[in-house]
This record gives sequence, C-alpha cells and structure tokens, in this order.
Amino acid sequence: MNKIKALIIILLVSVFGNAQEFKSPNGNFLMKFSLLSDGTPTYQLSYLNKEVVKSSKLGLELKNDKKSLLNDFKVVSATPSTFNETWNTVWGEESQIQNHYNELAVQLKQNETEREMIIRFRLFNDGLGFRYEFPQQKNLAYFVIKEERTEFAMTGDHTAFWIPGDYDTQEYDYTESKLSEIRGLFKKAVTGNASQKQFSNTGVQTSLMMKTADGIYINIHEAALINYSCMSLDLNDKTMVFQSHLTPDAKGDKGYMQAPCTSPWRTLVISNDARDILASRMTLNLNEPCKIEDTSWIKPIKYVGVWWEMITGKSSWSYTNDFPSIQLGITDYSKATPNGTHGATTKHVKELIDFAALHGFDAVLVEGWNEGWEDWFGQSKDYVFDFVTPYPDFDVKEIHAYAKSKGVKMMMHHETSGSARNYERHLDKAFQFMNENGYDTVKTGYVGNMLPRGEHHYSQWILNHYQYVIEKAVDYKIMINAHEAVRPTGICRTYPNMIGNESARGTEFQAFGGSKPNHTTVLPFTRLMGGPMDYTPGIFEMDISKLNPNNNSHVNTTLSNQLGLYVVMYSPLQMAADLPENYNRFLDAFQFIKDVPVEWTESKYLEAEPGYYITIARKDKNSNNWFVGNNNGVNPRTSTISLDFLDKGKKYEATIYADAKDADYKTNPQAYKITKQKVTNKSKLKMTSASAGGYAISIVEVE
Amino acid sequence: MNKIKALIIILLVSVFGNAQEFKSPNGNFLMKFSLLSDGTPTYQLSYLNKEVVKSSKLGLELKNDKKSLLNDFKVVSATPSTFNETWNTVWGEESQIQNHYNELAVQLKQNETEREMIIRFRLFNDGLGFRYEFPQQKNLAYFVIKEERTEFAMTGDHTAFWIPGDYDTQEYDYTESKLSEIRGLFKKAVTGNASQKQFSNTGVQTSLMMKTADGIYINIHEAALINYSCMSLDLNDKTMVFQSHLTPDAKGDKGYMQAPCTSPWRTLVISNDARDILASRMTLNLNEPCKIEDTSWIKPIKYVGVWWEMITGKSSWSYTNDFPSIQLGITDYSKATPNGTHGATTKHVKELIDFAALHGFDAVLVEGWNEGWEDWFGQSKDYVFDFVTPYPDFDVKEIHAYAKSKGVKMMMHHETSGSARNYERHLDKAFQFMNENGYDTVKTGYVGNMLPRGEHHYSQWILNHYQYVIEKAVDYKIMINAHEAVRPTGICRTYPNMIGNESARGTEFQAFGGSKPNHTTVLPFTRLMGGPMDYTPGIFEMDISKLNPNNNSHVNTTLSNQLGLYVVMYSPLQMAADLPENYNRFLDAFQFIKDVPVEWTESKYLEAEPGYYITIARKDKNSNNWFVGNNNGVNPRTSTISLDFLDKGKKYEATIYADAKDADYKTNPQAYKITKQKVTNKSKLKMTSASAGGYAISIVEVE
Repeated sequence: MNKIKALIIILLVSVFGNAQEFKSPNGNFLMKFSLLSDGTPTYQLSYLNKEVVKSSKLGLELKNDKKSLLNDFKVVSATPSTFNETWNTVWGEESQIQNHYNELAVQLKQNETEREMIIRFRLFNDGLGFRYEFPQQKNLAYFVIKEERTEFAMTGDHTAFWIPGDYDTQEYDYTESKLSEIRGLFKKAVTGNASQKQFSNTGVQTSLMMKTADGIYINIHEAALINYSCMSLDLNDKTMVFQSHLTPDAKGDKGYMQAPCTSPWRTLVISNDARDILASRMTLNLNEPCKIEDTSWIKPIKYVGVWWEMITGKSSWSYTNDFPSIQLGITDYSKATPNGTHGATTKHVKELIDFAALHGFDAVLVEGWNEGWEDWFGQSKDYVFDFVTPYPDFDVKEIHAYAKSKGVKMMMHHETSGSARNYERHLDKAFQFMNENGYDTVKTGYVGNMLPRGEHHYSQWILNHYQYVIEKAVDYKIMINAHEAVRPTGICRTYPNMIGNESARGTEFQAFGGSKPNHTTVLPFTRLMGGPMDYTPGIFEMDISKLNPNNNSHVNTTLSNQLGLYVVMYSPLQMAADLPENYNRFLDAFQFIKDVPVEWTESKYLEAEPGYYITIARKDKNSNNWFVGNNNGVNPRTSTISLDFLDKGKKYEATIYADAKDADYKTNPQAYKITKQKVTNKSKLKMTSASAGGYAISIVEVE
Repeated sequence: MNKIKALIIILLVSVFGNAQEFKSPNGNFLMKFSLLSDGTPTYQLSYLNKEVVKSSKLGLELKNDKKSLLNDFKVVSATPSTFNETWNTVWGEESQIQNHYNELAVQLKQNETEREMIIRFRLFNDGLGFRYEFPQQKNLAYFVIKEERTEFAMTGDHTAFWIPGDYDTQEYDYTESKLSEIRGLFKKAVTGNASQKQFSNTGVQTSLMMKTADGIYINIHEAALINYSCMSLDLNDKTMVFQSHLTPDAKGDKGYMQAPCTSPWRTLVISNDARDILASRMTLNLNEPCKIEDTSWIKPIKYVGVWWEMITGKSSWSYTNDFPSIQLGITDYSKATPNGTHGATTKHVKELIDFAALHGFDAVLVEGWNEGWEDWFGQSKDYVFDFVTPYPDFDVKEIHAYAKSKGVKMMMHHETSGSARNYERHLDKAFQFMNENGYDTVKTGYVGNMLPRGEHHYSQWILNHYQYVIEKAVDYKIMINAHEAVRPTGICRTYPNMIGNESARGTEFQAFGGSKPNHTTVLPFTRLMGGPMDYTPGIFEMDISKLNPNNNSHVNTTLSNQLGLYVVMYSPLQMAADLPENYNRFLDAFQFIKDVPVEWTESKYLEAEPGYYITIARKDKNSNNWFVGNNNGVNPRTSTISLDFLDKGKKYEATIYADAKDADYKTNPQAYKITKQKVTNKSKLKMTSASAGGYAISIVEVE
C-alpha cells in the first residue's frame, strides 16, 4: 500500500448556516448539502455546472422507535478533508488504482432525541459516494431499519438500462426504456427464475445505468455492502425520484443495526463519456483496503469444466433415478443403478484434465460430483449436501493424483440449494476436504429459495452468511466464486479471495432460451460496476440442439463475440465454457482463448455505449502484449480504433479474430475470419462487428 | 441392552372391515381403530372398560397440496405385534427399565393419491403411544405440514393442571381448573417472560395433566420430538376435544417433511392411581435406544455455582457499565472500569471451589464469565457472545488449575441470547475450549427471542438446532444442560449426554416474585414426564431482600420442602443453588444435600396427587441407602408412609428433616427439625408437612 496522504483543506468547503457545498478534486462535481426547514438532510449534485441530482432527501425510517432518523436534525459540524493515494491491486483491470477524493463529513444531531448521525460524502473525479454513520452514543445503541429513505432525484425522464427490483435474483435481461416506461414494461421484464420476489412495478435494481437526454451517463449503485440489506431503487415515475428500498428479512424488517456502524456507500458515477463509467474505480475505492495479509495464494484462473453439458441437458448432475428422495448418509448409492447420463465420472473428468493440460488451462471445474443431486432443488431441503461425499463413480483421490500429474488444478463446486445453515454447519469440513485434496477454489451456488425459510438471497441475514463464507475461506486459503449470491459491491478489494461472482444473467441463460443479443454490452455498465463476473464465455456451438436434441435454445451471439468477451467482461476467473469437442472444431479461434491472459496491468476503454458497443484494450500483466475485445449490440457497426496505447517505437503483430462478412448471430454465428498484421502505436484498425457480433485482437510484441 | 423379543400375535387383534382393536399386555387398555365413512382414521381408548378417549380423528393438513392426509384412506393392512425387553439406563430413576407393549401398525392408502401412511399404535400397561409414519414412496416425497390434526377427545370436563400454550416458553405457573374454565382464566395465567407467544385462549401445553370426575388420571404429551415442531393442544371447550397445534416457523409453516420419516409419538399415560403416572417410563420407551457407544464419560453431577447471586440481583453477569453497547473483538475491556458487582471473578470463583471441595460437590457452575454480558439481552444481537473470551477478572487457566487441585470440576455456561446461528458458528471452538480447560458439562441458555428472527423456541428449525448441539457435543464428550430450549420428550434415552433441561418455571422465579406454593407438586406430573429438570433447588434463605435489598421476592416454600426436592424432582444434575453463606447458617440441614445421591437404582412412588402432594423413595445406586422426599401443596398434611421397600431383615438409621410444628412457608419457612430413628422394612413413619412444606429422609444401612 502506498503511503496515505490526508490533508484537511478548510477552504474547499463553503459553510453558510445549515448548508455546505464542496467540489471534486478536478472541479467537475459540485455537491450541496442542506437541511430543509424541518431539519431533513438533503443533497444536490451538479456535474459541469449542470444539475444531475436534484435536491434529494436523506435519512432512515426506524421500526418501533418513537422517532426515526429522518428530520429534526441540526448540523453540529461539517468537516472537509481530501485524500489521495495509489494502491496496488492483488488482481484487477490494472495493477494500481488511484483513490483521490474530497470529503465532507456532516455531523448531525437530532434535536429531540440528541442522537448523532454523520453523513459522509466523498466527491471523486468520477462521481459521488456517501454513507450514513452512527457513532457510539447513549441514545442510539440498537435500532431496526424499517426503510432507508435515501432519494436520488433525477432531473428528467432518462433512458435506463434496468432489471426488475427483486429480493432474490438479478438473472434478468436488461430492458432499455425511459424511466416513465418502466411501469408499463415491468411485467414483461420479469422472466422466470428458481427464486424471485419483486416488490413494486417501478422497482429496479442497482447498479442502474442511465443516460440523460443531453448525453450524461449516470450510474447508481452501492459499495461495501456488509452487514446491511441489499438496496434496490423504487421509482416515483411522476417525480422521477428514486428512493432506496432495502431487502426485508423473514419478518419484513430491513436491517438490525448496532452503533457504532455505517450503511454501505451509495454511489453515483457520472460522466458525459460512457467510457468513464467503465473506467471508474469508485466502488473499489470506497471499500476497505485488503484485510488479507498474505495474498500470495490468490491467483487468477482460466478454467474448463464439466458444466455446460449439464446446463444444456446433455448430461446430468445426478447419478441415479432410483430414489424418490435422498437422505444423506442413509440412502445407499453403492447399490443404486447409475442413470447413464451422470457427467462427473472419473473417466470423463480425466478427459477434461487432458484437455486442460493440452491447452494450458489452470483448472477443471466439476459439478455434480457429490451425493445429493437427485432431489437437491425446490424441496426446501435442509440437509441437502454434505460437500465431502463423492458419487461412487467420482474418485476424488484418483482424479486429484491425475490432475496433479498433469499440472492442472481441480476446482471445487459447493451447491448449497440455498440451505445456508447446512452449508455453515459443514463449512470447516468441506474446506478441510478441499485442502486435503488439492482444491484451492470453490464455486458456490445458492439456487432456489433460501433457508432459513422466509429469508431472501439479498437480506442482511443471508448477506452475513456470504460474508462468513468469504472470511472463513481466508483461514483455509480458499478462493470463492459465489453464484446466486448478492451482486458484488467492491468487497473483493478487502477480500480478494472473493475471486468471482455470478449474480446476473450469465451464459447459462443462452441454453435456457437465450439472452438478448446486446446483453453483454450492458453488463459492464451494470453488474460489473461492483466487481467481476464469472460469466463463463467461450461458446462456439450456438445451436444447443446439437448438444441436446431436446433443447432448442440458441446462443444469441457470433463466435467472435464470444472471443471478445474475454476482454470486454473483465474477470480474474475466466472459463472456456464449451465442450472440448466444439473447441476442437475451431482450434484456430480457440487459440485466442488460450492466449488471452487473466491478469492485467492496464486497461483502456476505447469505445463504449451502453446497450450498443464496448471496445476495451488491456495489457497483460506478465508481458508487453495487449489484447483488445469488442462486443456489439444489435446494429452491425464499423469503427476505427487507434492503437496509440501501444508502446512508442515498439513493433507488434496483431492477430485479429473478427466476424466474417456473412456472419449473423442467428443464421451464421460461426462465420469468423482470422487475420494477422504488423502494428505500432500509430496504427489504426477499421473494425466491423456483426449484429451481436464482436472481435478479439491479440497484439504481441515482436523482436 | 437385553435381547429383543418380538413376536407376532395375530390373535391379539380383531379385524372387522376397516376397524381393529387391541389391548395392552395387562389387558387394562383397549384401543379401537376405525375409519369414518369418508376414510378419516380415528382411534378410541378405554381403560378398565371405561372410555377415556372418545373417537378422535387422526391426520395432517398439508400446505400447497391438492389433498391433505386427512381422509379418503383405506386400510391396506393392520399388523399386530408384541415387544418386551428390559434395558439398562445410563442414568435415571432406576437402573433398568422394562419396555413392554402390544403394537398395531395400521397401513393406510389414500384412494385418490395412492399415498401411504402408517399409524403405529403401542399399548403399554400404562397407556398409549402412537405416531404417523411416512414410508418412502413415489407420491409423497416432500411435504409441508399446515397443521397436524390429531384429536384427543375427552369424555368430560376434566380437571386440568395447565400452562398457556406458547411458542417460546413454558416458564409459567400451573393453573388448576376445569377444562371449561381455561378460557376465562387464560389471560391471568399468562405472566411475563423474555420471549413468549400464545396462539389461542384455550391453547395449553404438554405434558398436560388431567383428572376425571371419577378419579382417572390422564397425561398427554409427546415422545421423541426430533425434526418436527413442538406440539401444543388447542381445546374446543364445547366438545372437550383437544387438537394438536404445532409451532410455526417464520413463514407460519408447521413442518417440512421428507419421506421416509415419522412424527413424534403422541402419548397418553393413564391410571386410576396418580403414582403410576410418575412411575411411567413410556416416554423413554418410545425413544430410540442409546446412540452413544461409549457412555463412560457421562456422569450425574451435584454442583454449586456463581448464579443465585445474579438471579437475586446481589451481583451481576456484566463486568462494566462503561459502554452503551459491545462489539466483540472491538470493545476493549482491558481499559474498562469494572462495575464492582461482577460475580465471576477469579477470587470469588475460588471461594466457591473451596466450598464445593469442602462439602464434596462435583462441580462449580459460573455464569457471566465471558465478554458480552453488558448488552446481551433484548437487542436481537447476532454476534452476542464468542464463548471463549473471558472477562479480564476471570482467569480460566488459574481457575482450572485451582479446581483441579481441589478435585472439583468447572461447569461451563453458554448463554446464546437466542442467537442460534452465532452459537453454531462458534460451537466447535467453544467445545474445544471446554476440552482444553477441563469443562465436561455446559449449561446452555436461549433467553429472549430467537435468531433467525421470526423463528420460535419450539419451531422445527430451532429444535433442529438444539439437536445439532446435543449431537455435536457427543463428538467432544460434553454433557448438555439446555435452558429455555424445548421441553424434553425422552430424547435423553438416545442421547444421555442431554443431562439436563430447564424448559419450565424453575427456582429462579422464586427470585422474580415467587412461584405458586404447590408448583413442585405439579412439575413431576407435567414437565418431568419428558425428562429431568435442572430445577436448581436448595434455597435456604427465603427472604430475597436479605441478599438484595431491592428485591422483595419471597421463596414460597419451607426449607424442608427445598430438601425434599432433591428426591421429588428427579435429575442427574442437582444444584445446591443458594449461597455458601446461607448453607453455613444451617449446616445440619445442609447435610442432607451433601448426602443425597444423584444416581439411583430404584424408585418407589409412595404417595402422589397432582397439585397436592408427592412422596418418593429412591435407592442410591452406589449403596443400600434409601432417600425419601416429600413436597406438599397448600394444605398442611399428615400421612403415614410405610418403609416396606427396605430390604427385609436389614437395619437402617433414618435421619428425618421435616417442617417444625410452627413452620410456615410465608412467615417461618426456616423452621425445621432433624430427628434420627432406627427403622426396618416393617417401619411406618407418620409424617407431617406444612403448607408448601415437605420433608427429606436419608435411610442408611447400619451394621
């Protein structure tokens, strides 16, 4: 960590009565804090002298409390400060990140109750973060949040890229619409999921990406969501004011708090250039520095797995069809008839290990290896898995020895079926089992309704479970890749063993009927604002019926688009998700997946428009090579990109994997062409992407 | 274990169409099973040719299921059998227990759904047990119980000793009334508690003790309550039919079931002699045999403790008054000002160890030894204790070494404040800490509302937690004494490390304003039907203001009554709960507490009438000595007891601790007299007990 430079600059802040204002370090943002006549705190935000957030109320409604924390406040002090440091990432889109902000800490006291609350605002060059802080005090020790009443008052009927507000899932396609159109489109936007619960037909999730009529991009999200409920936004579509809406617990309560404590940060990343949204590191900067002393065991991973074949229905997680239901430790699998479709067999896993070794992958994920998959879903089953007992046809020791001999790691899979208590009860033994058998990464899953029953995937109680797993994993030097958990909020800065998350509509939905063709041009502006996604790209066979005749799904991208994903969708954990047999048919294209790194030292956002296109260039952490990825929306697009990010004077060879002229994501998705050319930092490349197409370029230094 | 003798006796059962009947081994009970015309199963029970349970419906209402398990059944088979074995107890009221019953297993099939359900009836010589069984089958794998609809149709307006049905506590005084009077008395019967929730003003708890107008005693309870919700009874006070009422979870559901599975046993212990109710072992017999292979580490315990001084308010659990709230691991106790009233100091605990050693007690319990007691209650606090971090003034190592040098064990205390998840997260480390520091018994506590929030003390989810703790403790060879957990149902047969339970109104209430004077003449007929209670008797100073001037409570018994409790209220775990200074004032009476064993080989129920009197004689497991205890209700009483249980021809000396003539539980409770006399098995003793008085007799073999 670099040395922290903190300096109080009194003059940054103008104080007049109960109102204060301050600016971002670059002066682009101006934020005004003021109290309404009834003592309600408010903030208002301008960007380049234009109002972007109108006067918005702040506060919390409490349960069973004579007085909420909404009004009757006076300002005790307003303390400005500034902060500027550069810190090193363990992994990320770059090796160093600057954390530079001006801060205003407004200390409030409620007249009647004498309760104290601090609202801490931080203006970065790319936006605003603020949070509520509750110092230790006599009159506010324990309190229950009925609702957080933070407003984000928009200045107009912006265009939004939204998914339905939901207590249990973010696995939705994004809808692009005006804010005023959300209500009418809401029902259509709610597609089925294993566990879901909406709260309002103008409720949307964060991170929410918007664009104003005059071309300003606004992103609302949260950072450092720890020991609090996940925030959605409830829109008043007459006033265009969003209000925070927290996820309730089984009793309907929104948060159990004990001072001293804080809320998560509420974030607004704002720019007139969409690329700045992608380049923002505000979410990470608002999280605590790394709490893991030795991070040497945390390593980005490129992997293959026994997974897509189950997702498509070609093979099964389960081992047998003999039993109407399973009781772990009682059901005798040794006498069961194998169903003949079980994916996780020793023989098949060895084939994957061979494939991984041949092509230089770090690891092999195997799902469906452990007892219990016959009735794991939808039964609200408490003791659903024990995480240590393999099926009879999965020989852990033999597989471990074989993988080790090939220099390949095995990746563990812990599906919990939402049974959080059961997972916690088995966690130590499950992690010990991983340590003993050479697994250092686990993909966790929370499919279906949560247990304890009545809790939601995004309630405080369950979020504390996810956090417990992350912290417990540190003790065992285990990396976590949590699926169906809450969407990330930059906690990976503090716990970089949180190597991945799903928490959005991933590639699996391409085998569940398909996702919108522009889906991955939205995700980096929304889901990825909080941290990387285990999107599992790399599908080469778009016609799923070729894998499973009973599945008519179509993957709604071209093959080149799939290659571009490895750069566009940043993750330290990247899967080559398709089957080896499909890669073997296109080994020249597969070469890009083999070449593309998962560790970067620098990232350049070349082109970006949410829902339409994204082009990013990233520099390998371990060489001077660069990699460019593009994902395109529905409209075919040609543009010229400049390679001016390359080192001056150096020579490179670019290998370009692009859509062929006749490529079409529906009818001809596998039409790609690969070309090579010499390039320098003066080169410009004219690139064309098909509808739902894209491209990938590897740029390798020569001589 | 003795050899199991099972024999099918076809002729025991008369089958006529859809109706069957069978008898108890002694012929006293006759049970009839039949189907109503709509296929509803019913049972009817007679005792000595008198109907005691009228035709009562059986079945379960399911949630979200097209058809419940209530009717439309046909009888597939009705299989009679008989069973007779004698098994050895690890601890108990006797060293051997006979388990003798006739059984009728009625296999039912639902016509429409083809679902199968077995109702298994067992008639013992002292009553009936029955349960629902759900075999593994295709059409019934998972199901959710909306309500169990088991009826207990009474034949009249019986007298009952009842406490309000409640999802969270049994810590109520018993009310004696007609069934028809419950509704009118209900409100008065509900006294305050840290966590409580009633469901109906004719709802009562089990075990429920009743007496019919013609002198038949009926006790309804349950046995082997595992992975199910606790049952209360909801009375229809027009028809005098009780229906089972299960404790709901946070969502209102009553039970999540997976076939193959069973309900707990529903029990009816019935006799025209109240002593037979106390002598019944049906609850234990309906539980599974011991599952712990090596039980050598399980030992009954007589103990003293740092506890009554906190209950009375003389000293405190907490260490400091410095902090408005505590965050474990963050709050720095080392700099805190001690409050001067903390009970669990090294110095004070050593005094207790000295006292225990001097008087031959096995162990010393210490509460309030660990960080967190400043804000442990009523805050719905998740991370409330860590169970391993002592206060600065409690030196675990020093205390352990000192206790060891004196031959005394320390007893651990784990108050969870109802935060069950937190306890499970810390359980392994807490038990390791106990192993490392020489603790082999833990008193657990669940004061206040449960976490996860919305769950109840008696819901299936939380019951599974208690069971998890019991089974986990076996791994560490730890004995559990659970307070505020669900009332026991004989599980101590299967897990005899479940050495104690509170789960009723214990002695502590004598310092919270007092209990009814006849309380302990009811408890053996109700709460103790399921297993022993850590009642913590032995209070010698009845005027609590002498311990704490601010506490005007009065202990509503005489001193002799307190001595009698050690025999009347069977427990393998007996506390001498009062302060050493109070025992030192009455060392001659204290001698009985020192002498009375906690391990028995035989028990004789000499006199019994619920609410009025109980006299029991028990034989020491390790000598030929006998001990007699009496507890009396409100009316002073004289009776003659025969010592014919003594060995013929042997000579004994009896030491009699009895109420003095002028004893009065209110005004002169400490008036006792101690006399000695020679006795044989021909002796008869005329004994008098004061109102809320009692006596204790030790009978020691001489020569």
